[in-house]
Amino acid sequence: MTASDLPTDPVFALHRGGKIEMRSTAPVRDAEGLALAYTPGVAKVCEAIVADPGLADTYTWRSHVVAVVSDGTAVLGLGDIGPLAALPVMEGKALLFKDFGGIDAVPIVLDTTDVEEIVETVAHLAPSFGGINLEDISAPRCFEVERMLQERLDIPVFHDDQHGTAIVVLAALQNTVRLIDRPLSDLRVVVSGAGAAGVAVTKILLEAGLGEIAVGDSKGIIHSGRGDLEGMKEWIAGATNSAGLTGSIEDAMRGADVFIGVSAGRVAEAAVASMSSDAMVFSLANPDPEVDPLMAARYAKVVATGRSDFPNQINNVLAFPGIFKGALEVGATQITKGMKLAAANALAKVVGDDVAFDHVIPSVFDQRVAPSVAEAVSKAAREDGVVRPRR
Amino acid sequence: MTASDLPTDPVFALHRGGKIEMRSTAPVRDAEGLALAYTPGVAKVCEAIVADPGLADTYTWRSHVVAVVSDGTAVLGLGDIGPLAALPVMEGKALLFKDFGGIDAVPIVLDTTDVEEIVETVAHLAPSFGGINLEDISAPRCFEVERMLQERLDIPVFHDDQHGTAIVVLAALQNTVRLIDRPLSDLRVVVSGAGAAGVAVTKILLEAGLGEIAVGDSKGIIHSGRGDLEGMKEWIAGATNSAGLTGSIEDAMRGADVFIGVSAGRVAEAAVASMSSDAMVFSLANPDPEVDPLMAARYAKVVATGRSDFPNQINNVLAFPGIFKGALEVGATQITKGMKLAAANALAKVVGDDVAFDHVIPSVFDQRVAPSVAEAVSKAAREDGVVRPRR
Repeated sequence: MTASDLPTDPVFALHRGGKIEMRSTAPVRDAEGLALAYTPGVAKVCEAIVADPGLADTYTWRSHVVAVVSDGTAVLGLGDIGPLAALPVMEGKALLFKDFGGIDAVPIVLDTTDVEEIVETVAHLAPSFGGINLEDISAPRCFEVERMLQERLDIPVFHDDQHGTAIVVLAALQNTVRLIDRPLSDLRVVVSGAGAAGVAVTKILLEAGLGEIAVGDSKGIIHSGRGDLEGMKEWIAGATNSAGLTGSIEDAMRGADVFIGVSAGRVAEAAVASMSSDAMVFSLANPDPEVDPLMAARYAKVVATGRSDFPNQINNVLAFPGIFKGALEVGATQITKGMKLAAANALAKVVGDDVAFDHVIPSVFDQRVAPSVAEAVSKAAREDGVVRPRR
Repeated sequence: MTASDLPTDPVFALHRGGKIEMRSTAPVRDAEGLALAYTPGVAKVCEAIVADPGLADTYTWRSHVVAVVSDGTAVLGLGDIGPLAALPVMEGKALLFKDFGGIDAVPIVLDTTDVEEIVETVAHLAPSFGGINLEDISAPRCFEVERMLQERLDIPVFHDDQHGTAIVVLAALQNTVRLIDRPLSDLRVVVSGAGAAGVAVTKILLEAGLGEIAVGDSKGIIHSGRGDLEGMKEWIAGATNSAGLTGSIEDAMRGADVFIGVSAGRVAEAAVASMSSDAMVFSLANPDPEVDPLMAARYAKVVATGRSDFPNQINNVLAFPGIFKGALEVGATQITKGMKLAAANALAKVVGDDVAFDHVIPSVFDQRVAPSVAEAVSKAAREDGVVRPRR
């Protein structure tokens, strides 16, 4: 496509001028309105917040606004494209926050990829927001950024590429095991990819009580005998693969029940054919899944992808709007494991009696999703004792 | 007022939940809409911006969004109240940007008051925005923050408490001298206050060719014989007061034509009475002007205040929406002196033949203001060669 073609392409036509705007909820039409919304009236609100900082939740937009923060290093399948080129994705995320969760969200793209600088920057601007959604920050830096920010801030910090994906995968898996009538603890899982999504999927499956998990990266199965591991991969080596598998991802797939692909790899048909008779294939790389979904359907009971043109779309928009909605509604100070598991459970339950092999996860346009997830997340936040009192 | 009174007070009722929200301009109602605004469609926009970063101006909201940045150290007349308590003011500013200039604006309140940290933070998030409006940052730090940021960034950085005030004051003064038929260069001016507004007013009056200016701070008239001066006050000592006045503000007012009050001081009636027969009193402290406007009216030809309940309201909303609108429309990389003077001229001209001693500045609700200022600012930006080409 050349620059002169852009204006006529429907994607570019839609993006002209961006996809979001600010709006006043208290328009100023006359001197009286100005005196209420701005000076001198606003001074009374400022003074009330000085006396009781918790009132900022009630009398500003802080309690319903999230920063969508990215350094542009791991954007979609495009990689490290920088902050300016990442901005359309962050605007898209802001749009989805509003349309799906009623949450206001502001794209903040950063001109630094240094972990300390990202943390400092976000920590300094945090008083402006009720939550921080980290987005498209490459691994392994994303793990440090999230941990350091959450330690510093008393508002939720949530890296969606990790936990959003993990929550939706777990929900889909929960519905799948209902159909085949096996407990989660009975399953053998292979996760292909040890980046942001792979690590988070592995964590949530362990927390949900899954049986046997093996994780692979570009060098094959991660096991404690490998000498090249550090950070989260070292953690993976200790927490998974109790069978001591070695070799390639495809080796590990032999007899496995679940394949979860969150990498750029490709998987041969023979490997899919070698899985168990209850094979479930979650092939989430987008737009090119590791396993061709039409091929996988010949062997697997359930096939899920990230794509909207196949059944069982694993899309983060099923999670993040409801998660932040639920967290912000109760003034949660963080997103706990309990809140993530509650989100997955609630998401799975929305499918209800309509569950089927081609319907293990709700449609992204199912209007019950965000309210159900939000309610469960609010409840879990209260149970975990991570809520702030609201005035 | 006690906490239980808050909900019934009209100011607090209006502020409940804040005054601004995000809105999608491309709502996603179905899979097709999602594929255009988000994945996979958005990837095409990202790739186009990678190839030509200038396209970010066209295909994101960057070209019409401004960050309203404050550290909460000099908020209204309330002083250093911190970021949370400053947020209602910044939301108000965002509201005014939209309602008066059609500019989207996002409040960013910072948890640091350190100049270097403010500069680093804002510089790191700058790719998200088309301009930076600094707000309610105390002097003298505000001068350094603005200068350092503008040196680093290729988008306009504008401290409204300085230049917004200065531009509106100059416009009012230009219309006043039309009425009394004297050139600006003929006037003797006393500026009370050497903070953000005082320094900027002094600068713009010098640039506009004003005759004799004396500036005072809490210790009296600034002159080169004072041993306690540094930074901008040292600059003031060198650039003003060629008559070598010493003593108090009230001493300097004897025979002066113009009094401009941008301080917390109080001025006695005798000092106002001692001014020239063409006395013009701009008493801008809000809500308590240095000079009582009813008293001043007994001596001065023109009285202007920051208040909406007196004639000649000097309100920054007459300037900043049009200034950013004009700057962003041409992709200006900074706000030059020429653009500020052009804004003042345009603002003065809106009054036109309706000029009168009680009408030297337009009403803030005059719908011609922002478009007129914007047009003049765009033109001056082009003349000054500080525009970026737009795709």
